[in-house]
Amino acid sequence: MSDLPRQHVRLIPEGDERERLVCNQCGYVFYENPKIIVGAVCTWNDAEFLLCRRAIEPRRGFWTMPAGFMELSETTEQGAMREVWEEARAKVEIDTLLAIYNLPVISQVHMIFRARMLSPDFAPGPESEAVALFRWEDIPWSDLAYPNVAWSLRHHRALVGQTGFAPRGIPED
Amino acid sequence: MSDLPRQHVRLIPEGDERERLVCNQCGYVFYENPKIIVGAVCTWNDAEFLLCRRAIEPRRGFWTMPAGFMELSETTEQGAMREVWEEARAKVEIDTLLAIYNLPVISQVHMIFRARMLSPDFAPGPESEAVALFRWEDIPWSDLAYPNVAWSLRHHRALVGQTGFAPRGIPED
Repeated sequence: MSDLPRQHVRLIPEGDERERLVCNQCGYVFYENPKIIVGAVCTWNDAEFLLCRRAIEPRRGFWTMPAGFMELSETTEQGAMREVWEEARAKVEIDTLLAIYNLPVISQVHMIFRARMLSPDFAPGPESEAVALFRWEDIPWSDLAYPNVAWSLRHHRALVGQTGFAPRGIPED
Repeated sequence: MSDLPRQHVRLIPEGDERERLVCNQCGYVFYENPKIIVGAVCTWNDAEFLLCRRAIEPRRGFWTMPAGFMELSETTEQGAMREVWEEARAKVEIDTLLAIYNLPVISQVHMIFRARMLSPDFAPGPESEAVALFRWEDIPWSDLAYPNVAWSLRHHRALVGQTGFAPRGIPED
């Protein structure tokens, strides 16, 4: 949302109160709204955590749970399962919504689910250079791609055995 | 997302797997993703429900809770409070997330909060032709604008006095 496409301008359309992205040529208004990131903390045997080492920038070489932009015509749960398949070639069942992180500075809302792998099978998708299962004590904490990965793993651990809880947010510390 | 703006085409960019909206003139890719609707079931004295009669299409003349498209650079809670102000000129405090509705057919995710009015003051904003507080038995059920209004009101009632619950979804019936 930072670089303005040529042929397009930001202006306040008549009757609106905010700047919108408008095509110089045809006048079409492109409404820009926050994007949803969907992802999942996936476990095998309730003991091992599925992480992907990113093959692409940003944060290439660092580990993350499967997560990415929600696409049109899917539910949040379907989007999370799609990301798990695309990045880690694993099949999971979604259990519950673990966390919602509001990141207004980058206009994103992250919705991270708790999921169980249906089999121990996995493999790197095109955006991953490696995929692995880690026991809690082996998680590469210093090589995680984003803060939300650690937040989500810790929320997962804190909520083991619990259901029916309110989704957690960004930790206060 | 249905009408294609002139000068723009839908095609699969190189390295992508999905059709995207691309400017014919400058090649810019406009990623279209699901939109978040934020809103709130607002009560005064835990007994009266704040509803707005829509002054604009669609569903002009029908009643709704305050809700609308989340905007850039805000959190979901801030967006819900903004919508309450814009549509009902009421100040509220957000309590908790009441419901998440996935509507993949229209690529929307609705996030509806439970909120308490900080004073009994309200007035119609530009998109409302009337705003009113209704006791439960006086809610105009047959004149509600959308199914999600009834879902949210009923979830609110079912969860009175409860906290720490998982957000509800679209009712099964």
